[in-house]
Amino acid sequence: MSAPELLHHVTSPGDLKVLPGEALPELAAQIRRRLIDVVTRTGGHLGPNLGVVELTIAIHREFDAPRDAIVWDTGHQSYVHKILTGRDDRLEQLRTAGGITGYPSRAESSFDIVENSHASTALSYADGLSRGFEMTGRKRRVVAVVGDGSLTGGMAWEALNNIGASDRPVIVVLNDNGRSYDPTVGALARHLAELRAGTATSNLLESLGFGYIGVVDGHDFRALDKALKAARAHTGPVVVHVVTRKGCGYPPAEQDEADRMHTVSPAPAPAAVTDDTTCEPRTEAWTTVFGRELAAIGEERADIVALTAAMRLPTGLGAFGERFPHRLVDVGIAEQHAVTCAAGLATSGLHPVVAIYSTFLGRAFDQVLMDVGLHRLPVTFVLDRSGVTGPDGPSHHGMWDVSMLRGVPGIRIAAPRDSVRLRELLREALAHESGPTVLRYPKGRAPAPICVHTRIGTVDLLTPHQSCSQVLVVPSGPLATVAVEAARRLAGMGVSATVADPRWIHPLAPELMTLVADHQVVITLEDNAIGGGLGAALSMAAHRAGLATRVIPMGLPVEFVPVGERADLLARYGLDAEHVVDTVLATRWRRGTSRAAAVSLAST
Amino acid sequence: MSAPELLHHVTSPGDLKVLPGEALPELAAQIRRRLIDVVTRTGGHLGPNLGVVELTIAIHREFDAPRDAIVWDTGHQSYVHKILTGRDDRLEQLRTAGGITGYPSRAESSFDIVENSHASTALSYADGLSRGFEMTGRKRRVVAVVGDGSLTGGMAWEALNNIGASDRPVIVVLNDNGRSYDPTVGALARHLAELRAGTATSNLLESLGFGYIGVVDGHDFRALDKALKAARAHTGPVVVHVVTRKGCGYPPAEQDEADRMHTVSPAPAPAAVTDDTTCEPRTEAWTTVFGRELAAIGEERADIVALTAAMRLPTGLGAFGERFPHRLVDVGIAEQHAVTCAAGLATSGLHPVVAIYSTFLGRAFDQVLMDVGLHRLPVTFVLDRSGVTGPDGPSHHGMWDVSMLRGVPGIRIAAPRDSVRLRELLREALAHESGPTVLRYPKGRAPAPICVHTRIGTVDLLTPHQSCSQVLVVPSGPLATVAVEAARRLAGMGVSATVADPRWIHPLAPELMTLVADHQVVITLEDNAIGGGLGAALSMAAHRAGLATRVIPMGLPVEFVPVGERADLLARYGLDAEHVVDTVLATRWRRGTSRAAAVSLAST
Repeated sequence: MSAPELLHHVTSPGDLKVLPGEALPELAAQIRRRLIDVVTRTGGHLGPNLGVVELTIAIHREFDAPRDAIVWDTGHQSYVHKILTGRDDRLEQLRTAGGITGYPSRAESSFDIVENSHASTALSYADGLSRGFEMTGRKRRVVAVVGDGSLTGGMAWEALNNIGASDRPVIVVLNDNGRSYDPTVGALARHLAELRAGTATSNLLESLGFGYIGVVDGHDFRALDKALKAARAHTGPVVVHVVTRKGCGYPPAEQDEADRMHTVSPAPAPAAVTDDTTCEPRTEAWTTVFGRELAAIGEERADIVALTAAMRLPTGLGAFGERFPHRLVDVGIAEQHAVTCAAGLATSGLHPVVAIYSTFLGRAFDQVLMDVGLHRLPVTFVLDRSGVTGPDGPSHHGMWDVSMLRGVPGIRIAAPRDSVRLRELLREALAHESGPTVLRYPKGRAPAPICVHTRIGTVDLLTPHQSCSQVLVVPSGPLATVAVEAARRLAGMGVSATVADPRWIHPLAPELMTLVADHQVVITLEDNAIGGGLGAALSMAAHRAGLATRVIPMGLPVEFVPVGERADLLARYGLDAEHVVDTVLATRWRRGTSRAAAVSLAST
Repeated sequence: MSAPELLHHVTSPGDLKVLPGEALPELAAQIRRRLIDVVTRTGGHLGPNLGVVELTIAIHREFDAPRDAIVWDTGHQSYVHKILTGRDDRLEQLRTAGGITGYPSRAESSFDIVENSHASTALSYADGLSRGFEMTGRKRRVVAVVGDGSLTGGMAWEALNNIGASDRPVIVVLNDNGRSYDPTVGALARHLAELRAGTATSNLLESLGFGYIGVVDGHDFRALDKALKAARAHTGPVVVHVVTRKGCGYPPAEQDEADRMHTVSPAPAPAAVTDDTTCEPRTEAWTTVFGRELAAIGEERADIVALTAAMRLPTGLGAFGERFPHRLVDVGIAEQHAVTCAAGLATSGLHPVVAIYSTFLGRAFDQVLMDVGLHRLPVTFVLDRSGVTGPDGPSHHGMWDVSMLRGVPGIRIAAPRDSVRLRELLREALAHESGPTVLRYPKGRAPAPICVHTRIGTVDLLTPHQSCSQVLVVPSGPLATVAVEAARRLAGMGVSATVADPRWIHPLAPELMTLVADHQVVITLEDNAIGGGLGAALSMAAHRAGLATRVIPMGLPVEFVPVGERADLLARYGLDAEHVVDTVLATRWRRGTSRAAAVSLAST
């Protein structure tokens, strides 16, 4: 068969099994071309998937999915699996609203057993699945494909400890490419390198009760076939140690020292580029602004140290690390350890900055609460990708951080509205030495700076404070842009609205509560789940204080938010100027009364 | 010196260093007698501390605390350390309000570097401390004492991966007694047993880059002295593998197969015993009621499986495990894995019950949210020790679970008010197959059952529902007792109050909201932090619905709650009938209006 035909004839693992072995390299080449063609346009995880083309083909030839459960750790390495299980025709819609997702998805295919994207979970799922199959007398195999980076996560250890002590035939395919984003750190990586080089004097995986098959060239079909057959025949748990090259087959990825093109951005549409350079002020990414400012502060303060859980560049720590390599700690994919290691650093007298994606801090709530919070230690958490993020979907929207962190006694949480405030609030956070602080900002570019009109205490008024204004809009972070635009539109309709950016969204500043008491209607805006955020806090505080002010929290619903563009999703959940205006207009209050302490006449 | 004198002369590690080696066994014997004498009266962690008497003495002789940082993992093994660092005279006040705590405490002593009680954190602190000392050019040693059980926790692995790859002289004293409560499970325990027996063909700790000194008899001063000296002289990270016997020197503990007297309860005062058997109805512990009911349900449903993170008996799974040993999974001290393993079990078609202390679920928030919640899997979490627990102090009060879990889309949370409701709600939870459910109850005995007057939907009215009642009290769980007593007192003052137990505290039932709309003042009662619990949700919901009902949440403040008796602490934070009555009386409302939809005249 000629090139395109071969791939078109494979729409399920069954088609794959009947292909002659000699056809496989051509199939792999076609898949690789397809990945490069599509993902460089759509954006997504390119490097990891280029590394597992042969491995994925080999696994689907050897095992019988979905009867055999194949679990892909950190599901972003599942694109080839998607292509081979009937989704090649939808690949162009990768990571778009209504299209196929960038991770496994049970809604898409029965071949997707779990829809995981946070690292290090596959072995725990595999342990549960294999226990369940055994308890119910079913002979279904479980295959977990896990990267060397993911093995640095504590969950993986907990699972290895359980699986290794069993006699269940769990097959762990260790996809060892030597990297997370950066090269994998730590003692395990060193040990795996020794295993690869044949210089290891002992084998950690065997010490834990696993059979060991390796080292296998992950781009050699014959070697893979032989190893997977041996694994299938093995009784009890077994590790197949496969060495792959991230970005394999695409020179720009193979030569990318930063992260082997771990992810690529969507190619910009030509029109958009023109617009961007001509009409809009060129603003910088939040991550860039943070990274540069932290590096500057590092020059001024020798006590500042930075920590990352295997995401140095994505969290903006590149510049800091270049200037102060000995003050940057990469702990591996190990968020729990990152937080408590920071507690240890703080106890030694330093001020650690833990730079992390919002969604991954959920891994370390107990550590933030007990190891940092209870100890009132000066640790600053910088949460990138807070709020609605976009194409990574439900598991990557950082919409739980405020709800989760507000419960930590003594914590302070800031949400900068623009790059100027980010720099300012970072410095304020680092000046706070009696407990933890948090900065949260979303993915993407910071909006154009919005100047403060008046600062009252820690609160920035972004409009002239009219004592007769009836409506107060309290935005969190960059939703200040929405608030200001809504106020402008309301003014055009004869409704005066004040916009107050609290900057520190927790705890609530007394000055903010005074402003609340001075208004009849307060709208809060945030891209955190509505139940536990700024709006909920303000609502309860106003209620407890006996104010008749009507507080209307606007935020994300307590549901999993799907894939989509940030702006589209914000609008969908009412976090745009139009919805704010509509909400204000739909709310009745006693016009003409300057102080709301009397009575609220509220509509639904 | 004679027996009592010796202990009295040791009030700091300095005193210890000048003692001749021959005196140490007698000192150990005195400390052991002291521990047995005091802890069997005060209650506390007896078995673990009896196991580390010689080890603690030896560590304090060899190292120079507090200059050398000694971190005790799962701080309950620090009693001997407390005795040796000047706190023997306060031991009688162990775990009492105002007394010394059952864990390290920085407020008590500069010898206590961290105040940890959740397992597996010591190595992460040690990594941070040693990095900090190195960065700031200080030559201070770091010694982490960690149990074999704690090494099954993922954090410990994350830390080993970091420490093992460094050349920092971190000394890990592995206190291997073969147990958590139960014998330690998993591949690591098997490996440690091989190391103890000398049959291991490889050494996992050496594979991870550690020097290894062992096996050392933890009750032999000469052996300990030699090993610790060698560790001190070692360059780079090193593990000293010490074997101890939990409960050592106290036959009732040594012979206790259940858990070697891991914890003992305070000896009851004679008068209290008399009262208990004559006056009060004999009620059972929540844990016992849960355990028996789950075992009964296990007979009826073959799909029910139970998971514990190394706490089979404390969480009440003993009976279930005896009847269905193959349906009980002990994953070790590994909460993250427990939750995602449960997700795997649920994916295989079973209904897992994760029995866990409330405070430890904070370790697995991400897993509850993503691996169970996002997958809408039928996993039931049974949270023992929710709310105010008592003498274990700030880190063991389970006061964050509702705030944390309410953000998980689709989750349902129940709080039984008594043993009858616990059994009923457990069955309701296990009948729910489209997403996670949670039951929460506190430590101790369930109160006497309170019968339902009328059930409206899922809400139990515990008083006659008078259409003219002005006050609605909405208690969470066993605070129903407080609510009913408050209503009784209010009735005596001419204020009619209705008590509505929602049973399911999240999501809010429509019937509950109808009741709220029918009243002018609503008091909510819960022992969760006030900011994110039932009261906050009800307050915001009432506010959003435009009701003029005054909702007054009563709960715990967002601060760390100290050691104390549950009843005392509840009263301190206003969660008793007296405070509820006072709060109602201090609140003004328009008396005589039967529906509150008009206007609230609220004070304060």
